[in-house]
Amino acid sequence: MPDLSPKPAADSITTMTELVLPTHANSLGTIFGGQVLAWIDLCAAICAQRHTGWIVTTAGIDDLSFERPIHIGQVACVTARITAAFRTSVEVKVEVFGEAATTGERWPCVSAFVTFVAVDDAQKPVQVRPLALVSEEDHQHAADANERRAHRLARRKR
Amino acid sequence: MPDLSPKPAADSITTMTELVLPTHANSLGTIFGGQVLAWIDLCAAICAQRHTGWIVTTAGIDDLSFERPIHIGQVACVTARITAAFRTSVEVKVEVFGEAATTGERWPCVSAFVTFVAVDDAQKPVQVRPLALVSEEDHQHAADANERRAHRLARRKR
Amino acid sequence: MPDLSPKPAADSITTMTELVLPTHANSLGTIFGGQVLAWIDLCAAICAQRHTGWIVTTAGIDDLSFERPIHIGQVACVTARITAAFRTSVEVKVEVFGEAATTGERWPCVSAFVTFVAVDDAQKPVQVRPLALVSEEDHQHAADANERRAHRLARRKR
Amino acid sequence: MPDLSPKPAADSITTMTELVLPTHANSLGTIFGGQVLAWIDLCAAICAQRHTGWIVTTAGIDDLSFERPIHIGQVACVTARITAAFRTSVEVKVEVFGEAATTGERWPCVSAFVTFVAVDDAQKPVQVRPLALVSEEDHQHAADANERRAHRLARRKR
Amino acid sequence: MPDLSPKPAADSITTMTELVLPTHANSLGTIFGGQVLAWIDLCAAICAQRHTGWIVTTAGIDDLSFERPIHIGQVACVTARITAAFRTSVEVKVEVFGEAATTGERWPCVSAFVTFVAVDDAQKPVQVRPLALVSEEDHQHAADANERRAHRLARRKR
Amino acid sequence: MPDLSPKPAADSITTMTELVLPTHANSLGTIFGGQVLAWIDLCAAICAQRHTGWIVTTAGIDDLSFERPIHIGQVACVTARITAAFRTSVEVKVEVFGEAATTGERWPCVSAFVTFVAVDDAQKPVQVRPLALVSEEDHQHAADANERRAHRLARRKR
Repeated sequence: MPDLSPKPAADSITTMTELVLPTHANSLGTIFGGQVLAWIDLCAAICAQRHTGWIVTTAGIDDLSFERPIHIGQVACVTARITAAFRTSVEVKVEVFGEAATTGERWPCVSAFVTFVAVDDAQKPVQVRPLALVSEEDHQHAADANERRAHRLARRKR
Repeated sequence: MPDLSPKPAADSITTMTELVLPTHANSLGTIFGGQVLAWIDLCAAICAQRHTGWIVTTAGIDDLSFERPIHIGQVACVTARITAAFRTSVEVKVEVFGEAATTGERWPCVSAFVTFVAVDDAQKPVQVRPLALVSEEDHQHAADANERRAHRLARRKR
Repeated sequence: MPDLSPKPAADSITTMTELVLPTHANSLGTIFGGQVLAWIDLCAAICAQRHTGWIVTTAGIDDLSFERPIHIGQVACVTARITAAFRTSVEVKVEVFGEAATTGERWPCVSAFVTFVAVDDAQKPVQVRPLALVSEEDHQHAADANERRAHRLARRKR
Repeated sequence: MPDLSPKPAADSITTMTELVLPTHANSLGTIFGGQVLAWIDLCAAICAQRHTGWIVTTAGIDDLSFERPIHIGQVACVTARITAAFRTSVEVKVEVFGEAATTGERWPCVSAFVTFVAVDDAQKPVQVRPLALVSEEDHQHAADANERRAHRLARRKR
Repeated sequence: MPDLSPKPAADSITTMTELVLPTHANSLGTIFGGQVLAWIDLCAAICAQRHTGWIVTTAGIDDLSFERPIHIGQVACVTARITAAFRTSVEVKVEVFGEAATTGERWPCVSAFVTFVAVDDAQKPVQVRPLALVSEEDHQHAADANERRAHRLARRKR
Repeated sequence: MPDLSPKPAADSITTMTELVLPTHANSLGTIFGGQVLAWIDLCAAICAQRHTGWIVTTAGIDDLSFERPIHIGQVACVTARITAAFRTSVEVKVEVFGEAATTGERWPCVSAFVTFVAVDDAQKPVQVRPLALVSEEDHQHAADANERRAHRLARRKR
């Protein structure tokens, strides 16, 4: 039987560190947007699986914005953290930072909120364990996530 | 000198048709979310370049939602269409449909709104040509895009 | 039971639009020949599946010729159209155009004729529906395809 | 100054051996046609560079035909050999064999003739060294290549 | 001027977390050895750049051994940590763990020691900062690394 | 029943020839270390399968050292040859040479010893056929391989 006891976000934080190679770049010599999106989806999916204990499928992305690009030879640092658990889905915040590994300089590149549905072997949605809200920040994240969710559902109705 | 005369959305519609191979799949045998995101970004970027006449860089993604997956051996049909032109940026609506090429069945897989900034050779933002709003639908798209943009800017301020 | 009623070529035309990234390029900064060939095979295979309603496997390529290359940052526009349906196979004409998306300039890059065999689940060849020849051009395409086929079969005998 | 002395075909024979992985496969679990085409183009291009001493660009492909597929876990053996040198171009015959590495069984998978133009740094065609025809077979290959070339040029005129 | 003050290993630890997709797998449905090697090299290279502040190039790999495979759908966790700094080179220990993200089970998959040379813009070797040995374990790592290095140099002489 | 008669190393020599494309390169325009490692693993695995007649899985790599890089547009020539057969495993020596295909210049790029375990359908180790040692060199290779193996096993015990 699946474990439905609450679990804190800290237990499923996921980190990817990727060297930007020519194969990831666009014609400007910076990372191609689609490659960043692929890393965001992967990092968030691992995080969501770690929290829920189920296979997950991407349901949506909200509020994704690019700040500053990352060049070939620099590093992309991707971090994913659960912000809220709903009945059969979770929202994950992903932040991508650029890093010049040789100088240590770091800058925000992209942030986004990715929602996943947990599914069983028959690919039917299944109930997920709640998120244990520990800090003040956890409560704020969850409140914001609920607002994004309400906005999403309203949009869908239209 | 760049051409700043209005241009209708129909002139830059972009279509990709992709056969889903094992290299695009996740462990469920359906298309991996990150791969769809990469195709969405590419298709939208070509569309934005065709409208603006400039190199573009991805600025953000809104309201991305997945409906139904696409399996290995099926086809992803991606279509991008400009919904609004702002001062130095454009919003592009992308729709991805799944297709079973052997039966002709089609279904919605993903839709999203991608915003791009037009840049010159020095990668500075440049003014883009307006969108010529022709049909009732064009006006509705542009109004919705403006609302999403206001929401995006408000979010940023926080 | 499979549908063997004739179908016009217009019903299975397939279009791919691809942004040329560094990952697709050779050491000259233009698209690597093998990548164009892969796109040609994919686009033609989708077209052949749409016409026949069967899985198809590549049987051969004829008269493939490269005109002018496409550079990183430019766009490859691939179009596939059935030219003839034989008993268990179809011939597809593929044309690849280069496009500078920012200026709208377009030029022929490659054209080729790809032949596919339709197969059932046991990978045995199956009879395919005929092509409905509508225009004068359709008849000309089919006549040329028959000539290429005769040439191909003669070559095989040797 | 470039060396224009004749060189035998044996001096530029090129061999690739590739393990077929899921990333190379189509939905039938056999090698995707476009991947074979990419390997054919690469193998032939190295062969043409070894003979001519120049960078080469793919000009065309003739008489490509697929025999029997190669499955995931089996091996593709690709061999390229010059068949004829013209003024600024060469024709290369490529043969791909499937191999079950664990049993030693081998079978023909694809054969094709690829034509390359030799270019200098400004990408202008340059004169290439002749092929030293040594054996009876060499003469036969060259005669067949000349016939294919005549056919190709005739086709172009139309 | 480059900073040559000693720096502890903890300051350059690098972590990659990768979801194993069909594109990374061999015909057994487990991660293809070459893909693990690529991730090891990338993770170690970022770690070496973070320590040295220079571009680095791979000089060698020692004592690489595979324990237990990772299947499609499971996760590869890669960690790199400097073990020793020599005059112009560093040794990095990399450990790859398999993880079933849905159960939390983890197991050793591969470990290896990768040596990198630091180079300047002209790709000449440059002096690197020392490693600050803090714990007992740091001293043991450095001693072992020196032994591996002696063994490596002895081998080279032969 | 598997064939356990001795087989000479010459019968399973495997050769790959690869054109270095931008997709294989690092930010210095030379081949990315991880890509060379992937080619080494693939070439050695085919060689080990050809000798043993079984599926093989990578067990370890020893004494891997990089000499001189290979640039985009140049060629990587990879050769694998069995050096020793143990009870259920084999050691394969892999050498990678760089080649400037247009001048014929060749240089050593990497060499390594890769060990594989032969496995049956249940992925259990199986006994492999011995290596027929023919030349003086074969005996030297086998003796060195035995020494590396002893070193490897000693290391594991610690």
